[in-house]
Amino acid sequence: MRSEIPRLQARGSQRATKKVDISDLTPEVLPYLGQAAYFELSMFESLAGAVTTAPDLAAREGLSAAAGRALAKHHGLITEIRRRGGEPATEMAPFAPALDRYRQQITGADWYETLLSCYLAGGLLDDFFVRLSDGLPGDVGPRAAQLLAEAGGTDVLVRELKAAIAADPTLASRLAMWGRRLVGDTLLIARSAMPLSAAERAEESRIEPVFTELIAAHTRRMDGLGLTA
Amino acid sequence: MRSEIPRLQARGSQRATKKVDISDLTPEVLPYLGQAAYFELSMFESLAGAVTTAPDLAAREGLSAAAGRALAKHHGLITEIRRRGGEPATEMAPFAPALDRYRQQITGADWYETLLSCYLAGGLLDDFFVRLSDGLPGDVGPRAAQLLAEAGGTDVLVRELKAAIAADPTLASRLAMWGRRLVGDTLLIARSAMPLSAAERAEESRIEPVFTELIAAHTRRMDGLGLTA
Repeated sequence: MRSEIPRLQARGSQRATKKVDISDLTPEVLPYLGQAAYFELSMFESLAGAVTTAPDLAAREGLSAAAGRALAKHHGLITEIRRRGGEPATEMAPFAPALDRYRQQITGADWYETLLSCYLAGGLLDDFFVRLSDGLPGDVGPRAAQLLAEAGGTDVLVRELKAAIAADPTLASRLAMWGRRLVGDTLLIARSAMPLSAAERAEESRIEPVFTELIAAHTRRMDGLGLTA
Repeated sequence: MRSEIPRLQARGSQRATKKVDISDLTPEVLPYLGQAAYFELSMFESLAGAVTTAPDLAAREGLSAAAGRALAKHHGLITEIRRRGGEPATEMAPFAPALDRYRQQITGADWYETLLSCYLAGGLLDDFFVRLSDGLPGDVGPRAAQLLAEAGGTDVLVRELKAAIAADPTLASRLAMWGRRLVGDTLLIARSAMPLSAAERAEESRIEPVFTELIAAHTRRMDGLGLTA
């Protein structure tokens, strides 16, 4: 996820795509941490809600672990806020209305749509916040990235979704549509994190490559589930 | 909480009350872990629900930590089940219906009743499972007790309840009544954990001292909130 770390290339090297420097589009540290922390709290609440409505105990068990993971990210970010003398509630507050609205938008009509939302939105926005963290000063960037890149806990989402999709082709096409719908709202949240001055807004072309990366990862997640992105 | 550990006595020594040996009333290891694990999962769900309806971000923040604590207990117990070759879902399943019913009974009419339920039921049943753990074979007892005795995270419940009670005497009397109502249902859950044969059932007197201890701790929690138990 942090592509500046040297690693073996997958077949068909992607080195040709030079990583876009967005460090000057990175927000201030405390707002960054506040928004990411509130997002993880939202993810925790969505996942915790899915625990209660899970069809069996094994799914509940797995989802509770996923909820715990989101909560751990939230608390890790809160710790970073406190370390910088910030008050978590104060730093998160500005982002609450938009993220609450967003959470409602992506809740979905049933348990499977909720699961897909958690998987896709969590994946995309965790990727995004990891990406933004490159531009943060000091050691907070790497620490936030390490917290956020922790993908553990999503295996239960993939497993439950795959099983349900395999069992019901109707569900597959409904979820494919839902996955596509999510992207727009999710990218709007990502966009709202960047402190774009009016001048910079004109430079949309600088942000687009970042979004292209995020959407590519999103598409891989959809593919992995057997859904057309 | 584990009174066999030597410690300084609070004023008015309680040594006079000899601790009742209930080791032969302790259930088998896996059912014990299954019931305790499912109870902690229920507590997690109740607390996670209270996060969503919390009146402000500071309360949400604190409650999410409390939910995380219940989840950590749950996962710790699950780990103990796996360590013994058990399947968590299988071991928890027998206890799900009664604990789901119980959870519904103690949900309460509003956010404050839910908080009080989590505080009192969590306190009483954690105490109880710690107490029962004395009779477990091998090292599982001490490990389970250490997990369950972890009271961290309840301070937010006490703080929110105290503030609300101070602000509204009507709430105080309603919550006092609610706290009293909870005890009966909670003790029934505790009782259901003991594998009482018909013969032992006749010996109610052996269990009563244990319940007396549990109720004493419950009364101290009520007192701490300024509520009459």
